[in-house]
Amino acid sequence: MTADKPIEESAEFTPQFNEQGLLPAIAQDAHTGQILMFAWMNRQSLDETIKTGFGTYYSRSRKKLWKKGEQSGHTQKVVQILTDCDQDTILLKVTVDAGQCHVGYHSCFYRALKPDSQNELDFIAQKSYDPAKTYKK
Amino acid sequence: MTADKPIEESAEFTPQFNEQGLLPAIAQDAHTGQILMFAWMNRQSLDETIKTGFGTYYSRSRKKLWKKGEQSGHTQKVVQILTDCDQDTILLKVTVDAGQCHVGYHSCFYRALKPDSQNELDFIAQKSYDPAKTYKK
Repeated sequence: MTADKPIEESAEFTPQFNEQGLLPAIAQDAHTGQILMFAWMNRQSLDETIKTGFGTYYSRSRKKLWKKGEQSGHTQKVVQILTDCDQDTILLKVTVDAGQCHVGYHSCFYRALKPDSQNELDFIAQKSYDPAKTYKK
Repeated sequence: MTADKPIEESAEFTPQFNEQGLLPAIAQDAHTGQILMFAWMNRQSLDETIKTGFGTYYSRSRKKLWKKGEQSGHTQKVVQILTDCDQDTILLKVTVDAGQCHVGYHSCFYRALKPDSQNELDFIAQKSYDPAKTYKK
């Protein structure tokens, strides 16, 4: 935060990592506007994303840095890095050339709640690749 | 989770709240695809969102349910509620009739990292309303 301006009005990028040292990060297709996935970044993954131009996250389950697509080849080329008013969330606008969800869909958001239901989901997308062929066991 | 299908393939909505009882929630303009804000939901706010059709969150700072726009009038009418592969994130597609960020912008994501910079932000949007007139002190 600059001394003279609140974080919301500042042109200084001062990301506010949470108590675990993480920031929520949203990946959005730069061309279509579709939300592709939601993940987390630590300081190192944010620095790598800025330095390399490829979406890089922190895997909380594997407890390690995770360049999206390092295994599947389905990388994210960063077009723009945005932050929100209180600088505690990151939005990556990215271009991608293949499905981004490990289940086989283009986006992780492939299900929507049925209208007038509280617990039934509609599948609103088709799989765009076969994860069994993409991910080596 | 259904007994016979993993959560990624299930048509049952079984949101996976984190250890604080919260889910990350992204609000996206249903018409333009613009990301408007990022916030959190607890079980009650998700239920209210489903029941009322208006984006309702949980304010971690105020420790209370928060219907977006309850003070400013800048509500979010829910068009669709999506969840991601592991059902631990919510995406609301919403229609809005006024700026959604408390700072005065349409979206909270009004700044982007300057190309080739690690710490300088560009303001990429204009304010769409005057928060001083909207929020009563």
